[in-house]
Amino acid sequence: RDAAAHAAAVARNGQLTKPPGALGRLEELAVWFAGWQGTDRPRCERPQVLVFAGNHGVVAQGVSAFPAEVTVQMVANFRHGGAAINQLSKAFGATMSVHALELERPTADFTVAPAMEEAEVVAALRCGWEAVDAGADVLVTGEMGIGNTTPAAAIAAALFGGEPAGWVGRGTGVDDAGLARKADAVARGLALHAARLGDPLQVLRCLGGRELAAMAGAIARARVERVPVVLDGFICTASAAVLEKAAAGSLDHCVAGHVSAEGGHGRLLAALGKAPLLDLGLRLGEGSGAALALGVVKGALACHSGMATFAEAGVSGA
Amino acid sequence: RDAAAHAAAVARNGQLTKPPGALGRLEELAVWFAGWQGTDRPRCERPQVLVFAGNHGVVAQGVSAFPAEVTVQMVANFRHGGAAINQLSKAFGATMSVHALELERPTADFTVAPAMEEAEVVAALRCGWEAVDAGADVLVTGEMGIGNTTPAAAIAAALFGGEPAGWVGRGTGVDDAGLARKADAVARGLALHAARLGDPLQVLRCLGGRELAAMAGAIARARVERVPVVLDGFICTASAAVLEKAAAGSLDHCVAGHVSAEGGHGRLLAALGKAPLLDLGLRLGEGSGAALALGVVKGALACHSGMATFAEAGVSGA
Repeated sequence: RDAAAHAAAVARNGQLTKPPGALGRLEELAVWFAGWQGTDRPRCERPQVLVFAGNHGVVAQGVSAFPAEVTVQMVANFRHGGAAINQLSKAFGATMSVHALELERPTADFTVAPAMEEAEVVAALRCGWEAVDAGADVLVTGEMGIGNTTPAAAIAAALFGGEPAGWVGRGTGVDDAGLARKADAVARGLALHAARLGDPLQVLRCLGGRELAAMAGAIARARVERVPVVLDGFICTASAAVLEKAAAGSLDHCVAGHVSAEGGHGRLLAALGKAPLLDLGLRLGEGSGAALALGVVKGALACHSGMATFAEAGVSGA
Repeated sequence: RDAAAHAAAVARNGQLTKPPGALGRLEELAVWFAGWQGTDRPRCERPQVLVFAGNHGVVAQGVSAFPAEVTVQMVANFRHGGAAINQLSKAFGATMSVHALELERPTADFTVAPAMEEAEVVAALRCGWEAVDAGADVLVTGEMGIGNTTPAAAIAAALFGGEPAGWVGRGTGVDDAGLARKADAVARGLALHAARLGDPLQVLRCLGGRELAAMAGAIARARVERVPVVLDGFICTASAAVLEKAAAGSLDHCVAGHVSAEGGHGRLLAALGKAPLLDLGLRLGEGSGAALALGVVKGALACHSGMATFAEAGVSGA
């Protein structure tokens, strides 16, 4: 983070033609972007949206309202421009790409074996790492993977503790029995892999999925490139949490785009100390909540970087 | 409101490639827009932002942190493109115009006389009415007027009752003494005009201001033209509330863009039964919170009107 750019942005913010603090959280967001982008006039002109897709062995446990074939169908929908994330990316001028990670070869069911081998999780991390455009001025990572709220809940429970029932939610819309099956699957996964769960990367390997690992890889790369990240919902945030637990401060370049309707998301954000920009009851994934928050980012940066100062405008101060 | 278009939009929403309800409030917003715009594929391509400016005799009571000359200076800033609302309008593709209402002739100090004569309030209402572009697909009304949180608080207190102290806030940043002066001014205004305050339009005349009346005129016109309105902060909402009290249902075409940091705004929205789209601590006025919410509107309508259906995309349902 560029302390000089941050300080220059704070100074500029104090001179803009508005009462001090009157743009609320937009002011805080703009100076934070300034620090990461290394300029006192940050911009949101080249947002990048990455969508990673994976399939999950744990769907065998009856944890999703939709069949696993929907993952590959939705990838086709992303490629043809028909999904929500396509519309949101276009609305906010973001480039969007979809990365399908071996959909024909789901991860292992984590209630019976580690979800991934070492080589598999490394390959998925690398896919995310390499997908980041170092010239982007903000990054959104999203996902698609039928069943993936269950791995996300398992990761959250492994990293932060607490009962599985406190981390699972209805995902795409499971009923009470489905919810109970999710909590049960998470409990069995935690028990089976207990000896390895002290290491956050083993948590990702044993309980996660390829698209979750890819998001973690992309978020880590963005940190190296100083590209600020807008976090999406529960699954994205669970992936990001692996990085934070592996090295505290790893998510300093991330802002929470929204809090989703999925049960554990608010709790997960609170554990990470992230206050969401939006709270509109979304629970779609794909990066949709974060992409919607690009509107707030665009507004914040447009004000900060485009407004006149009191001196420029000849306006009297308080 | 077009019931057929609303029903068609509800049907379309149910077929889009997402789990039912997964876009949360965006879905509700899109079908609501559909009803007002009279199409099952509503759009946000021609947003209009109107900023009305007025000056207030009640500033003589020491109710603002800024001098009254700032109103005319900020109008110049709007015209030169330097204010927050200019940047936000540009960011979301809105046309923006500024309407200065007799700035050289402030309203009367409502602690000593009615703020406006009948002819003055009618002229201001007409200014707002005539400023609306009937071809706009969404309207934002904003304001600038040093001292105008005090008339807004007085209107809210007159329409909804309660102690003045519960409606006044820090506006552009008054200290505790300023806050006490605001509450006192409101109390004296309510007492002086008590006999007339049973009529909402008299409330607007006796306690309001030209830019508040102009916003009310614009919002009323938008209703006639079936242009949905995104309400801004405390002052805009107080103006709108006059219409609602004059005829229940008058604000059915309005959605609350945000809840501001100004004390009484959340309370006023609750009294009107409006849930805000954003809650980011803004308290600038100018229409800034509503203009920022255009990002959410754009995202909602882009998803609704642009997404593929399950049938179009060949995606399996739940």
